[in-house]
Amino acid sequence: MKRPTIADIAREAGVSKGAVSYALNGQRGVSTATRERILEIAQQIGWKPNSAARALSGASAGAVGLALCRPARILGVEPFFMELISGIEAELSARSCGLTLQVVADHDAEIAVYRRWWGERRVDGVLVVDLHVDDRRVGVLRELQLPAVAIAGPGDFGGLPSVWADDAAAIEEVVEYLVALGHRHIVRVGGLPDLLHTTIRTRAFAQACQRLGIQHAVTVPSDYTGEEGSRATRRLLSSTPRPTAIIYDNDVMAVAGLAVAQEMGLSVPAELSIVAWDDSLLCSLVHPSLTALSRDIPAYGTTAARQLLTLVEDGSVPSVQAETGHLVPRGSTAPPRMIPS
Amino acid sequence: MKRPTIADIAREAGVSKGAVSYALNGQRGVSTATRERILEIAQQIGWKPNSAARALSGASAGAVGLALCRPARILGVEPFFMELISGIEAELSARSCGLTLQVVADHDAEIAVYRRWWGERRVDGVLVVDLHVDDRRVGVLRELQLPAVAIAGPGDFGGLPSVWADDAAAIEEVVEYLVALGHRHIVRVGGLPDLLHTTIRTRAFAQACQRLGIQHAVTVPSDYTGEEGSRATRRLLSSTPRPTAIIYDNDVMAVAGLAVAQEMGLSVPAELSIVAWDDSLLCSLVHPSLTALSRDIPAYGTTAARQLLTLVEDGSVPSVQAETGHLVPRGSTAPPRMIPS
Repeated sequence: MKRPTIADIAREAGVSKGAVSYALNGQRGVSTATRERILEIAQQIGWKPNSAARALSGASAGAVGLALCRPARILGVEPFFMELISGIEAELSARSCGLTLQVVADHDAEIAVYRRWWGERRVDGVLVVDLHVDDRRVGVLRELQLPAVAIAGPGDFGGLPSVWADDAAAIEEVVEYLVALGHRHIVRVGGLPDLLHTTIRTRAFAQACQRLGIQHAVTVPSDYTGEEGSRATRRLLSSTPRPTAIIYDNDVMAVAGLAVAQEMGLSVPAELSIVAWDDSLLCSLVHPSLTALSRDIPAYGTTAARQLLTLVEDGSVPSVQAETGHLVPRGSTAPPRMIPS
Repeated sequence: MKRPTIADIAREAGVSKGAVSYALNGQRGVSTATRERILEIAQQIGWKPNSAARALSGASAGAVGLALCRPARILGVEPFFMELISGIEAELSARSCGLTLQVVADHDAEIAVYRRWWGERRVDGVLVVDLHVDDRRVGVLRELQLPAVAIAGPGDFGGLPSVWADDAAAIEEVVEYLVALGHRHIVRVGGLPDLLHTTIRTRAFAQACQRLGIQHAVTVPSDYTGEEGSRATRRLLSSTPRPTAIIYDNDVMAVAGLAVAQEMGLSVPAELSIVAWDDSLLCSLVHPSLTALSRDIPAYGTTAARQLLTLVEDGSVPSVQAETGHLVPRGSTAPPRMIPS
């Protein structure tokens, strides 16, 4: 079946193609009656000129949405989101789909954005990040029947399909590695404690330490900023006994922790081992370069975008597991220098 | 859950769909009384203007576009763009306008995106970044009559309004400061040489050095990545005589340069002073923290978005000058340790 064109409408309406174009673009140059007849014919023969017409007919907005509920300045410095967005973009642009981005202050604002996006048909679906343990966005998305894929988990999100990574397995690998190096006093500087993936990591860290006989395995909460990473590190390195290894929940805090160790005259890795999660170029830029839990974050975004587009088209999609982060040992980890006790 | 449509309003009001459309779009063709009744019903049943319908009527797409022509992995690590986007978002979301983002491989792809966005009325205008000296995107935007604001300059972009910063004055301040500290051998690791702002900075750097009697003022080109920053620094610090100060065109390369100095056993700032452009949290995260040319990048984005929205509304807007970067001295700059010559 041939796709209807402006010429088809013009022939049907008995007017020029120019008149059809005026009418469809809302420009002056045709009478009200003619405009109405043209719009009616366009609809009858299923003419689809552009995203606007497609959306009018209920077909597609041609865009998906991503709301980011993080302070602007953290977004700027943390590579994770821009890498994720790059991966999302790779899939969307291959499918001629746009990405609509919005930075929001809190969940209320985010929910208002979802209502507006969906109400005005600006998006066909959304990707949801940074899920909380009891996340009220999930209920709103379900109520709106707005197609959504959660980049989170593993977990049950009220029927929301998700793309998730096995963070528990990843942190186990780190703890096992540090214990094998001889570390017995390991501390973790965790991310925002309300986030689901923080609680998953915190539980898995505690269990791995317990299984391997590591006592005093503490997770110190943080907000992912370099400032809090510095503060937490300064406090930890001033305490007695000092930890011999610190695991950070993002690369920004790990780099900040390295700077604090240097400022306090501690040698990394001899006196302090450092592990970053996630990996990014930041970890390779500093000296010594940081051992990190690495994974292909753009690929994670690509998978999420692909799942969302399938959900929009087919009405349902399964949750999928993405790559588990794997340890990339670099210069910041070594056996601890033995301190006479 | 079905979204209320114009047909629902028409049925409720006992008028044609065309009449509803006129009323909702503020066009003539319905009486005042009818218009009022239609608007009332629309509000009652929760009808929301559809972005598609608005676009068809020529009103507005409710979104502006930003195409980024940088490799995904550089976008991930460089804070500049995410901070810029945060600032753009701040203005757009206050005006209920969306941001449509697309990462593109080259200018051909970017031009194709502009044609599609404008042809399908997905955006009301675009922000253009990373302008080249002779930039063919400018001609295409003019030909398309797509409202556009360039984040670039100072310069003439064929009538395109711009938001620009005085990079020449900023680099002069850096050179004067380093010379006042006693540096006589200063090298700059510049950004991508095709970019307009790189050529402006390179020329201003050479002129400032000449004026202050600094010989051998060299700019080494780079691609903004940490890898190239490292390579350039390793080469410079292996040469004789060694520069005593290096200015980097972004923060990522400056951090990489610091790591190379540490790896080669050089003391910063005693044996090497480092200045970063732009400033970001990265510069404060490392040890010693980096002296930087600082400016409010989110505010830069906010101004650009505001200018674009004014251009879309009014049809014209003047170019505006944004804040000039100012020097923030930190631990990475000091008088050079005197080397017997």
